[in-house]
Amino acid sequence: MSNTEGMLREGSLANKTIIVTGGGTGLGKSMAAYFLKLGANVVICSRKEDILAKTVEELKASAGENIIYVPCDVRKPEQIENVISKAVEKFGQVDGLVNNSAGNFISPTERLSYKAVDIVVDIVLRGSYYFTLALGKYWIEKQIKGTVLSISTTYAWTGSGWVVPSAMAKAGVLAMTKSLAFEWASHGIRLNAIAPGPFPTKGAWDRLFPKELSEKFAFENRIPLKRVGDHQELANLAAYLMSDFSAYMTGEVITLDGGEVLSAGQFNFLDEVTSDQWDTIENQIKTATRNPGSGQ
Amino acid sequence: MSNTEGMLREGSLANKTIIVTGGGTGLGKSMAAYFLKLGANVVICSRKEDILAKTVEELKASAGENIIYVPCDVRKPEQIENVISKAVEKFGQVDGLVNNSAGNFISPTERLSYKAVDIVVDIVLRGSYYFTLALGKYWIEKQIKGTVLSISTTYAWTGSGWVVPSAMAKAGVLAMTKSLAFEWASHGIRLNAIAPGPFPTKGAWDRLFPKELSEKFAFENRIPLKRVGDHQELANLAAYLMSDFSAYMTGEVITLDGGEVLSAGQFNFLDEVTSDQWDTIENQIKTATRNPGSGQ
Amino acid sequence: MSNTEGMLREGSLANKTIIVTGGGTGLGKSMAAYFLKLGANVVICSRKEDILAKTVEELKASAGENIIYVPCDVRKPEQIENVISKAVEKFGQVDGLVNNSAGNFISPTERLSYKAVDIVVDIVLRGSYYFTLALGKYWIEKQIKGTVLSISTTYAWTGSGWVVPSAMAKAGVLAMTKSLAFEWASHGIRLNAIAPGPFPTKGAWDRLFPKELSEKFAFENRIPLKRVGDHQELANLAAYLMSDFSAYMTGEVITLDGGEVLSAGQFNFLDEVTSDQWDTIENQIKTATRNPGSGQ
Amino acid sequence: MSNTEGMLREGSLANKTIIVTGGGTGLGKSMAAYFLKLGANVVICSRKEDILAKTVEELKASAGENIIYVPCDVRKPEQIENVISKAVEKFGQVDGLVNNSAGNFISPTERLSYKAVDIVVDIVLRGSYYFTLALGKYWIEKQIKGTVLSISTTYAWTGSGWVVPSAMAKAGVLAMTKSLAFEWASHGIRLNAIAPGPFPTKGAWDRLFPKELSEKFAFENRIPLKRVGDHQELANLAAYLMSDFSAYMTGEVITLDGGEVLSAGQFNFLDEVTSDQWDTIENQIKTATRNPGSGQ
Repeated sequence: MSNTEGMLREGSLANKTIIVTGGGTGLGKSMAAYFLKLGANVVICSRKEDILAKTVEELKASAGENIIYVPCDVRKPEQIENVISKAVEKFGQVDGLVNNSAGNFISPTERLSYKAVDIVVDIVLRGSYYFTLALGKYWIEKQIKGTVLSISTTYAWTGSGWVVPSAMAKAGVLAMTKSLAFEWASHGIRLNAIAPGPFPTKGAWDRLFPKELSEKFAFENRIPLKRVGDHQELANLAAYLMSDFSAYMTGEVITLDGGEVLSAGQFNFLDEVTSDQWDTIENQIKTATRNPGSGQ
Repeated sequence: MSNTEGMLREGSLANKTIIVTGGGTGLGKSMAAYFLKLGANVVICSRKEDILAKTVEELKASAGENIIYVPCDVRKPEQIENVISKAVEKFGQVDGLVNNSAGNFISPTERLSYKAVDIVVDIVLRGSYYFTLALGKYWIEKQIKGTVLSISTTYAWTGSGWVVPSAMAKAGVLAMTKSLAFEWASHGIRLNAIAPGPFPTKGAWDRLFPKELSEKFAFENRIPLKRVGDHQELANLAAYLMSDFSAYMTGEVITLDGGEVLSAGQFNFLDEVTSDQWDTIENQIKTATRNPGSGQ
Repeated sequence: MSNTEGMLREGSLANKTIIVTGGGTGLGKSMAAYFLKLGANVVICSRKEDILAKTVEELKASAGENIIYVPCDVRKPEQIENVISKAVEKFGQVDGLVNNSAGNFISPTERLSYKAVDIVVDIVLRGSYYFTLALGKYWIEKQIKGTVLSISTTYAWTGSGWVVPSAMAKAGVLAMTKSLAFEWASHGIRLNAIAPGPFPTKGAWDRLFPKELSEKFAFENRIPLKRVGDHQELANLAAYLMSDFSAYMTGEVITLDGGEVLSAGQFNFLDEVTSDQWDTIENQIKTATRNPGSGQ
Repeated sequence: MSNTEGMLREGSLANKTIIVTGGGTGLGKSMAAYFLKLGANVVICSRKEDILAKTVEELKASAGENIIYVPCDVRKPEQIENVISKAVEKFGQVDGLVNNSAGNFISPTERLSYKAVDIVVDIVLRGSYYFTLALGKYWIEKQIKGTVLSISTTYAWTGSGWVVPSAMAKAGVLAMTKSLAFEWASHGIRLNAIAPGPFPTKGAWDRLFPKELSEKFAFENRIPLKRVGDHQELANLAAYLMSDFSAYMTGEVITLDGGEVLSAGQFNFLDEVTSDQWDTIENQIKTATRNPGSGQ
């Protein structure tokens, strides 16, 4: 069965209402589409009403009728509370949240203004904890066993240069996930996260860098599995985490990145040694009983 | 949809042949049963031929015809190679391996003999790398994009007292998983792991400890989600990892433990404070602007 | 040699100027004192001028003359820049920064307002990245090989309930540490962190909780090494990280917590089993070849 | 003060007897020398008596008189027990152990025989747990608050291709460290680890690879801090961990690697972008509000 098909049984998300922030485009839109196909009611929100409207129209035609949008800047608590109200009004209650809104500046950090850093941190971290806090209060009051999925990154724990505001914010969201997973477990609320590798939207990468750099840094060359991810692959994992099939999982972050994060391994640079070169050096290597790198 | 039902679409493992070590009982048997239902050919092995035979008979009746057993001590390379030969003979090729065999001594470490530690390490670590090495050589030679799933534990990275031989061995298997996930990615071979929390076999825990202790340590009280896991929940996750739906995931270990591992959080002991006590101390707490625990 | 004495050779921090945020009290004050003794010039800052003045007076008498204070709210970039200006004016340049300012609310998260969460995140995360960014720009421009030490917590990566705003903020600081350690390594700038366990200031813990709870949660009982830390122990580690002796370390976070964070180990609850009970159950345990907890 | 000088105050290890496995050469020898200078009694062991004898002679002349050697294959419990006996006979008791013996094969894993993997695992993992178990039993019986330091690697937790036997074994040692740190804390026994980056012994690396490869993979280019480590830098950290100054630290692994392990950061490949290129692309980048890599 192909990895680019939906994996869950029909109706796996029936009767669940899920809010997807940043749901108008990219991975947010792909998740929303698959949730709809699995029977969920979906509420997408973002700051861009025109894009939201177009996406709702498109998904109604292709994936399912039970979708609405509500414009929302996730840095504004009152707008968040409005999304929840509208969702409850339309679908009766809210069962799940996907913290997917994001922003990023790719830049040497010393070139960033204080304000530039703030913008990313506010959208990613503040937006996620405002929305999670608002829903948590609602779920605890109403005794609903809600589920939160946050879209994180591998650099939330490895760190990464040149995307420092995003790294800090995503790390904060990850800590929120693990902290509230424990604290709110007694209320039956679960929180998990996904750390995706490259699931690019067509062309975005190429537009970002000059041709020489975008070719040099091509994902196909840098990712151990030699390809980027397909949106359905991420949607499959996200749907599992929003469904009751993952009912025993909480506080977990799952990496889906074609092995990208594994590159930290101390000797992984040896993937550039060819098979012929290994033949030549095999005897040299095998007689070395001590690791020359670490002096042991 | 209930968390104790199978989650994947029918046929998700069709045409895949999977070897499950320690497949005669417990979680190994539960995984084997679900793989069969999803269309896989299954080979179970362990040292106990009578149990294997009984399990094969039972699963043929309940889950599917395409299952055989081959007796095997995973500490013996020639027996491992025999399992692979028999599997190829019967089903044409081998596509997947579940390293599930395990042994454990629960004991103060200073009470263990050198030999007792060796026994656990040999079954868990040596058995896993012998089997993975044997299949990896076969897959690379035959250009088969095989998949390995190792059953790990959360204490493979947190460590845990009183199960030290198992902790060391499981940690070794985890390092193997991440290392080979990178190294063998270019061959299309994937390796992942699951760290399960308590998925007890009926009665085992109670038989192990005197009544006062087994009650004191009851999982229901210690697990944040207040229950043990259901075997189908683990089988669902395992089937996802053996299927092509997880084709972009490698080198990952997924924890499925009801939040058990989260207990390390520095202030998580506060789950014993009641709501009334929080009312009383709220003002005291809110006026404290510095973390008294860490002196900040 | 006693663990509560200074460990570094005399003059280990000679000619280095170090800013300590939150340096008027607690661990910040203890670090400032030891840095002074080792020959550093020290600048302490916080929002409370009267406390700063008193601390400077006290440390001049007991630890060394080369200390000044500058009032500063770390959430205000212009006040941060003023601290740096005053430090350069007085001591010629700045070589090191200790991000030590902190705030915390210990509370069920659903009882917190959006604003309460913001306050902690702004002091801990925003304050740390504003100060680090300001100094980074200065160091890169002046080609100074500066060093940053951030006081983190173990729950920055484990998460912890009941201190969620702090957990998110400290996690963000940790990501900043690892990210900039890589990015700014080419400028010779190093960033590290310490995750301290309980180093309480006398009486703070007791004042926070009612007597029954403060006794129940006594650190002496919960910490594997059965005691709280001594401020000099933390100051020793901090001085190492600010000195050139750690010149090859960057992006690292060192835990100094008496083993507190290790409690996540799955079988560590067995520390409550007495030696006599182990005698009784030893045979039962040793005949169990499978881990009853995980079903393996 | 230079990073290549000793950092601890004189006499910091006075009256402590420390066993260093693999102490005849490389980092083991460097640690032994510094421990001697700080007042410790030192026992070095390895399989090579001639090298041990020469090292003892050399260190007696340069670092201190209180050193002996005992030949030992760490895979043989009776030889380990002999080392302990000889150390007690000579110095009265044993206080510390450095698990430093190691072996490694750098090779594509599928080229290794079962036996080749066994050799590395037996030296590194089995040797470490045999020695630690032997001393733990002795310390608990004699009520000595001993300390263990194990020399690990960063790939013990990141994994690494092409050194898989070592990765598995070192991961096992790390799990032992964290597990026993908790379990034996009540006996006052501490266990910690260091994960060193490149601290090469002169020439070893160059002898291992053909010239073109050894130049291509030169540490100076791959390490963020652009140099290899100095043996004294590692000895300083090791001495801290063996001394009472680290009395509140247990179960910790400290990385000292020039930032090498940080390379996993998802965008760290951007260190190849020049300052001029950043100028050119700055506007492009700053207008991108979504991370193109992860589709967010």
